[in-house]
Amino acid sequence: MAIILYDLAGAEADRRFSPFCWRIRMALAHKGLEVETIPWRFTEKDKLPQPNAGRVPAIVDGGRVVHDSSAIADYLEAHYADRPSLFGGETGRALTSFVRNWTETEVQPALVGFVVLDIYRHVAGPDRDYFRQSREERFGRTLEEVVEDREVRLPAFRESLAPLRRTIERQEFIRGAAPAYADYVVFGSFQWARAISEFELLAADDPVAARRGRLLDAFDGLARKTRAYGG
Amino acid sequence: MAIILYDLAGAEADRRFSPFCWRIRMALAHKGLEVETIPWRFTEKDKLPQPNAGRVPAIVDGGRVVHDSSAIADYLEAHYADRPSLFGGETGRALTSFVRNWTETEVQPALVGFVVLDIYRHVAGPDRDYFRQSREERFGRTLEEVVEDREVRLPAFRESLAPLRRTIERQEFIRGAAPAYADYVVFGSFQWARAISEFELLAADDPVAARRGRLLDAFDGLARKTRAYGG
Repeated sequence: MAIILYDLAGAEADRRFSPFCWRIRMALAHKGLEVETIPWRFTEKDKLPQPNAGRVPAIVDGGRVVHDSSAIADYLEAHYADRPSLFGGETGRALTSFVRNWTETEVQPALVGFVVLDIYRHVAGPDRDYFRQSREERFGRTLEEVVEDREVRLPAFRESLAPLRRTIERQEFIRGAAPAYADYVVFGSFQWARAISEFELLAADDPVAARRGRLLDAFDGLARKTRAYGG
Repeated sequence: MAIILYDLAGAEADRRFSPFCWRIRMALAHKGLEVETIPWRFTEKDKLPQPNAGRVPAIVDGGRVVHDSSAIADYLEAHYADRPSLFGGETGRALTSFVRNWTETEVQPALVGFVVLDIYRHVAGPDRDYFRQSREERFGRTLEEVVEDREVRLPAFRESLAPLRRTIERQEFIRGAAPAYADYVVFGSFQWARAISEFELLAADDPVAARRGRLLDAFDGLARKTRAYGG
C-alpha cells in the first residue's frame, strides 16, 4: 500500500512548493517507496491526519501518522532499514543535521526574501489572506517591500553558497558520488523557489546549478516533471 | 614509533597556532596514535620533509611523508582503519567535507580579520617581516587597519555560527554523541584564535563556547594544556 503524503499545493493542485515536503518526496523515492500525495493548503488544518502540528509534511503509512520532515526521515530510515540509507549511519545522520541547520539558517531565510511575493501569487484563494497577513506580521513589512531590492541581495546570496559550491566542485553530491538526505534538504529549498518563482537564483555556470540539475533528473525526473518554472 | 608532526609554532616553541595542525593533533589523539611534534616556523621551508608544499601540517610515519591536513586525515583513516573512525564511513567523509568547506569559507576568513595582528605579535622573530608583508599584500591594508573595527564585526560573526549553534543545541558534538574529524576541523579554528589572541570570540553563555570547552577537555585536556589564552 502506498504511503500517503500531505503535500503543500498552490492554487493549481499540481504546484507543490514546500521545501520540507520536497525533502520527503525525494526521500521516499530514494527508499523506492510508493507514494500517493494529497494536495493540502495552509488553511486546511482540519484535513490533516491526527496527530499533527498544523503543518505539512505529514505521512500516513498503514495506520501510522508521522509529521515533521526530520521525524519522517528518521521514521523511514528506521522502518525501511533494508532499503538504501538516507544517512549512511549514525555519524552521517548527525552530520546531516549540520547541513540541515545550515540550510535553515542561511539558505531558506534568504530565499524567502526573494520569493515570498511569488508564493503569495500562487497560493490557493482561501490561503491568500492568511498567507499575506502572517508573513507581513513576521517581516513587519508588506510582501512587496520585502522583495523590492532582491536583485541587490542576489550577489550576497550566491556568495553565501560558498560551502556548498566548494563541496560539489570536488564531489557530485554533498553525500559524495550519489545523493542522500543531506542533498534532498538543500535541494528542497531550490525546488521550493523554482516551483513558485521565475526569479533565477543561480548563475547558469554555477556548479550549484549543475548539482540542482542532477537532482531534477534523479528518480526519472520526479522534480523536473512537477509544475514549476525554469531549468 | 611515534608519528612526527611538523607543527606551526610562535616565538615560544610551545605556542601552536595553526588551525590545520590542530585538526591533525586532535585526529592523532582520536586514533590513539603517539605523536612527536616538531615546532616549525613559516620561514623554515627547508626544514620540512620531502615532498612538501611549503606548509604544515606534514607528518612522517615510518618512512612515509604525508602533507596537507585533508590528505593526512585520509591517510590516518585508511592506514589505521582498526582504530576509532574519523569519518564514520564514506557518507560521513563526504559530509565532513561540507563542514570543512563551511569552516574555511565562513569561519576562518572572519577569524583572521579578528586575530591577524595578534598572530603577528606572536610569530618568531625571523617570521615577522614575512608574515606582515604577505598578509598586508593579501588584505591590501595594514594589519592594524584590518583589526581596528573587530568589535563592530563581532555580532555578525557570532550570528554566522547559527548552523553550528543550532546543531549542538540538540547533540553534544557535530558528529553526534562523541566528536570526530568534523568537530576537530571547526575546533581547530577556535583553538588557533585562542592560541594567539585574548580577543574573546564567543559569549560566555553561547552553546558554541560550551562545545569548545568539551573539546578542550578531550584527550586528557590536550588542547587546554597547550600554551594559549582564555578559557
